[in-house]
Amino acid sequence: MKFKLAFIGFGVVGQGLAEILLEKDLQKEHDFEYEVVAISDMKLGSIYDPNGLDLQKILDLVDRGEKLDRYPTDKTGWDPIETIKKSNANTIIEVTYTDMKTGGPALEHVKIALSEGKHVVSTNKGPVANEAKELLKLAEKNGVHYRFEGTVLSGTPAINLALLTLAGCEIKEIKGIVNGTTNYILTKMEEGMEYEEALKKAQELGYAEADPTGDVEGIDAQGKIEILSNTVMGADIELEDVSREGITELTLDDIKTAKEEEHRWKLIGSTKKTEDGIEAKVSPEKLPLDHPLASVMGPTNALTFTTDYLSDVTIIGPGAGKKETGFALLVDLLYINNLVG
Amino acid sequence: MKFKLAFIGFGVVGQGLAEILLEKDLQKEHDFEYEVVAISDMKLGSIYDPNGLDLQKILDLVDRGEKLDRYPTDKTGWDPIETIKKSNANTIIEVTYTDMKTGGPALEHVKIALSEGKHVVSTNKGPVANEAKELLKLAEKNGVHYRFEGTVLSGTPAINLALLTLAGCEIKEIKGIVNGTTNYILTKMEEGMEYEEALKKAQELGYAEADPTGDVEGIDAQGKIEILSNTVMGADIELEDVSREGITELTLDDIKTAKEEEHRWKLIGSTKKTEDGIEAKVSPEKLPLDHPLASVMGPTNALTFTTDYLSDVTIIGPGAGKKETGFALLVDLLYINNLVG
Repeated sequence: MKFKLAFIGFGVVGQGLAEILLEKDLQKEHDFEYEVVAISDMKLGSIYDPNGLDLQKILDLVDRGEKLDRYPTDKTGWDPIETIKKSNANTIIEVTYTDMKTGGPALEHVKIALSEGKHVVSTNKGPVANEAKELLKLAEKNGVHYRFEGTVLSGTPAINLALLTLAGCEIKEIKGIVNGTTNYILTKMEEGMEYEEALKKAQELGYAEADPTGDVEGIDAQGKIEILSNTVMGADIELEDVSREGITELTLDDIKTAKEEEHRWKLIGSTKKTEDGIEAKVSPEKLPLDHPLASVMGPTNALTFTTDYLSDVTIIGPGAGKKETGFALLVDLLYINNLVG
Repeated sequence: MKFKLAFIGFGVVGQGLAEILLEKDLQKEHDFEYEVVAISDMKLGSIYDPNGLDLQKILDLVDRGEKLDRYPTDKTGWDPIETIKKSNANTIIEVTYTDMKTGGPALEHVKIALSEGKHVVSTNKGPVANEAKELLKLAEKNGVHYRFEGTVLSGTPAINLALLTLAGCEIKEIKGIVNGTTNYILTKMEEGMEYEEALKKAQELGYAEADPTGDVEGIDAQGKIEILSNTVMGADIELEDVSREGITELTLDDIKTAKEEEHRWKLIGSTKKTEDGIEAKVSPEKLPLDHPLASVMGPTNALTFTTDYLSDVTIIGPGAGKKETGFALLVDLLYINNLVG
């Protein structure tokens, strides 16, 4: 199958994938044949060419701060839903924004695309967090695939690690550091920085947003733990079922005291099968220094999967970034290519 | 496709997979339909029933120390090659013994099976180390799959991690602890045991064989580094191209001195792309305690993949064991099932 791709959203992550597509000879290396036929972005506008767009020209436009309607094609101005429905794309790259509580508007994009019989790859947490099971059923019903590696740990294998390389194992517990911003702040505080200063530094480096609530209150981690629970542990829980405590109550003194005791504070997300169902939470934990998660520093993320046949398997890697998250979309595309041939 | 499985070899690893097959409802959970039609083992003898064998009965026989010809079927006595050629198996589980230098006899089994148009899953290092590229081509030519996750880090994702979940990344370097026996011995020596005592303990626990040369001289690690080089880094090297030094020259004093300097000796295998081609080696390295590989203790293994898009991704997990290695065969079978539908 030749992949005809439509980008719904073309911000940092979408551009990250676009750059990767241009850098690699994917046809030669992975038998992956594709063209980009449409892009629809809230800020940049939208364009469509059923015979394929020139991705390099588009990135050049965007780099110069220009809008997409400067690209030489007469088909412009479609909104995301028109782009999904009317374009000849067979695969949708959904990288718009999303409301974690409702999943919108990304949820609607994913639903419509799958209903129209188009594959979807997405790094958007909202749709998976809200309706993972329904969307996967919808995909199956329509003979297409919905994949979302980038929703947890960016391109570092997490969902795919569990579903592909641990297939056949029962995963009993998942535990780890799933938010790079807070891990970076805690690392800096251990070096002696006050919370406010560490947060400012994280914002300067692009790790934290202007409104850091989602990260520091543990909401981002909460969403990821919900996704892991529902997609790889077979649970069916809501965001509120993941109990949550952020890092804002931790003082420099707490961190110093822990250090003296050869311990280290980490914001830990976990989900565990128990006799009473899934027990999922996000909270700061004081780990002994020889604990495998204690040595994961800075913006790096890590997850330990406790399984029946392999006991503990731990993966450590980046949790965010333009290329890191763009790559998550690529690996999902390549996997679909493997399956559909 | 219904998998008709033939076990070539039925030692610890084969029995590990057999136990897993009985424990799981793989048809329900993974849409994996199968029956075991043949087993051929040098010590236990061989049996064949084109309509499927009763795996539980077979494990019971083996547990009682009896041979396979006690199983109620009239087809007995086939050698591995007859079993591969004459049985109605469409998938061969190759878990015999192998000579790392020649690949035999496992290499011949894999070759014949692929030539006959049968899928092969194997944990045998010999064939992959000697002829990975040729065997993969042979599989492709015959429209079947050859998979070997269990050759490195048992069931802990290593080959599949690289080929499936990091597909699309360039892997520039792989470095890690790929031999559990030596890592266990070094861990015990740091606790104060002499080398000979630690080795004896490793043998008692089943980590080291009666002749420990393959482990302690780094030959086992050398083979794994060759496999990683040739199967996931695109190299085409021989075993001797991996320079090798084992742990037998390390003294208790060396280890104590390192500890005082906040360092730790590890037997590290690595393979790296350079301007002059692949640079691959196995040797003891003195790592600072905050190095991610320094905290990997006991029989646990770990690999760090240095990539273009994800920088470093590290996996940590078991490197050996009956169920751990048996599971590697299962995950390969499930992946083939995904592909052939």
